[in-house]
Amino acid sequence: MAKISVSDVQGEVDYEKTAKEFGIDSMHGFLKKLPDAPAMYRRGLVFGQRDFQQIYDATKNRRKFAVLTGVNPSGSLHLGNKLFIDQALYFQRCGADVIIPISNDETYVFHKADSLEKATENAVNNVIPDLIALGFEPKRTKIFISTKTLRIFELAIKISTKATFSTVKAVFGFNNDTNPGQIFYSIVQSAHILFPQTMGYRETVVPIGIDQDPYMRLVRDIADRLGMVKPSSTYHKFMPGLQGGKMSGSKPETCIYLTDSPEAARKKIMSAFSGGGGSLAEHRKSGGNPDVDVAFQYLRFMFEQDDKKLEEIRTSFKKGDMTSGELKGYTADRIEAFLRNHQKEREKANSKTDKFMID
Amino acid sequence: MAKISVSDVQGEVDYEKTAKEFGIDSMHGFLKKLPDAPAMYRRGLVFGQRDFQQIYDATKNRRKFAVLTGVNPSGSLHLGNKLFIDQALYFQRCGADVIIPISNDETYVFHKADSLEKATENAVNNVIPDLIALGFEPKRTKIFISTKTLRIFELAIKISTKATFSTVKAVFGFNNDTNPGQIFYSIVQSAHILFPQTMGYRETVVPIGIDQDPYMRLVRDIADRLGMVKPSSTYHKFMPGLQGGKMSGSKPETCIYLTDSPEAARKKIMSAFSGGGGSLAEHRKSGGNPDVDVAFQYLRFMFEQDDKKLEEIRTSFKKGDMTSGELKGYTADRIEAFLRNHQKEREKANSKTDKFMID
Repeated sequence: MAKISVSDVQGEVDYEKTAKEFGIDSMHGFLKKLPDAPAMYRRGLVFGQRDFQQIYDATKNRRKFAVLTGVNPSGSLHLGNKLFIDQALYFQRCGADVIIPISNDETYVFHKADSLEKATENAVNNVIPDLIALGFEPKRTKIFISTKTLRIFELAIKISTKATFSTVKAVFGFNNDTNPGQIFYSIVQSAHILFPQTMGYRETVVPIGIDQDPYMRLVRDIADRLGMVKPSSTYHKFMPGLQGGKMSGSKPETCIYLTDSPEAARKKIMSAFSGGGGSLAEHRKSGGNPDVDVAFQYLRFMFEQDDKKLEEIRTSFKKGDMTSGELKGYTADRIEAFLRNHQKEREKANSKTDKFMID
Repeated sequence: MAKISVSDVQGEVDYEKTAKEFGIDSMHGFLKKLPDAPAMYRRGLVFGQRDFQQIYDATKNRRKFAVLTGVNPSGSLHLGNKLFIDQALYFQRCGADVIIPISNDETYVFHKADSLEKATENAVNNVIPDLIALGFEPKRTKIFISTKTLRIFELAIKISTKATFSTVKAVFGFNNDTNPGQIFYSIVQSAHILFPQTMGYRETVVPIGIDQDPYMRLVRDIADRLGMVKPSSTYHKFMPGLQGGKMSGSKPETCIYLTDSPEAARKKIMSAFSGGGGSLAEHRKSGGNPDVDVAFQYLRFMFEQDDKKLEEIRTSFKKGDMTSGELKGYTADRIEAFLRNHQKEREKANSKTDKFMID
């Protein structure tokens, strides 16, 4: 199998360069100060931030703040989505209330669902139970469906006068063929992010991938024009897809879904892109490359919280002591166990929905 | 006083030419068939139509249909607005239910109110009581405020994929400085017009001025793409402003408002643009021009329903027998009487609001 380039995912330099270009600050100074920072912070996977100081101050002063993470209900949740949610769960432990907009409008206007109804159905029957099963506290989590929330329509209309077509065109890459729903969604997304402020939260932090930074700059600019507090953001590296690259819902072959059976997920891991040698003999001799090994990266991103254990695996795989099959087997065990537990929780989630939903 | 050009208002040729250019059909064939057609139809003030046959069929077969007339709550209602409402009231007598969207979003995104709240307040405290006072039947009239109606947001999102920026740009004259709220409003307006179909009405007729035809073509095109029935429209001539031209809410000096005191309205009429001679002697000698006389036009548009009486006035003024002051006095009496009665009804309207509003 030809090795594919994953430099856009694992390359440290690219993230640093892009962050610098965009004017994103380093997360480094906050890492040691964050209470019980999860592995993804310690490991530099959450590498950048804008205005994180105000969030740190809120956690330090035990002041309530909001963490916002939107979900596009175009399909089932996958591990790439879980990366956002893990951060929201962490901020909830730090004192934040979690606000989750489900952007059924985004799904539909960008043609990721045949109808708005189908996007809404998928949100209600599939995405929301998955979210709830991931362990949010009902009293401190508010989930809403974009087109079912009148306050979002009103807020979007209100803030729509603070941007121009020119601005949103540049941010979203619009052209003459763009439909008006897509154009307005650029503002609805900003409304989602500013919504917590209208609910009484002062600070909001939005965990995002670096590719989403232009949207963040748009909403921060709008907030500024409205005299609102500019929302903060943190930037994480992309969750690798099964063959490297980025795990993306629009490419199912890159994804492990939270709805995959544990057995199916194991199979996906076992045939994921490997950083091991071309043959066992070669691997024993030259070792593997954990930096591009997808199974290793899944441990690093979320399935091995123990830094010492992760380091042992890295070293062992790199030296060729641990084989690619062994590493994949280890990761598959972890993911299988996670999915078994998650899917048990998911069965209970349907009965809890009302505790989480707002309109 | 220099005579200003009112040819864009009274010129028969311009309306015919524009109608032809736009592909608007004549209303002529329906005039004699319409039951108890009010003066504005008999006098050719409602001169054009698109797909009116289906509306005529509905009235003939006593099938329920919808008449839709939107109101932009940028100020108080004026006689220009009443021209739309008179037609809606007529169609209600013909069996239609009346649907009235109040476009507080339009007011705000096009900068006709300082805030969305102010537009909404003006709708609730000022425009809606005026509408109700004009005599709609509560059981067959549904008024809603655009941003307070979740079904409009959902419908607008749904239909937004059936147009492109290119299309709405051409219709509304958008450019790079246009705000995204204005762009989306082009679709919200179409959603207002298609809303009755989602409520179970098959046919909808929208009385409009010829300048609004591009919006009608947009919504008819969207309806077609959605497999919905194309809404019908009728076209009326512009209600003249106090100095000629068009009565327009954005130019208060052109308007008689439904909230004007009868005395204030009288004063406005008495100093309105006159088609009379420059002096009394001149008028007696050469006569007046009723076609450009604003007071006469107000009688023709709405305040003298008796065709014989109107013809007497026209002839007498034209010959110079009736003076400009007499004509204005006659019209002022009619408008004063209307306003006195209307404002009495308006005081009772507040207690009836709930019977008319939907969300």
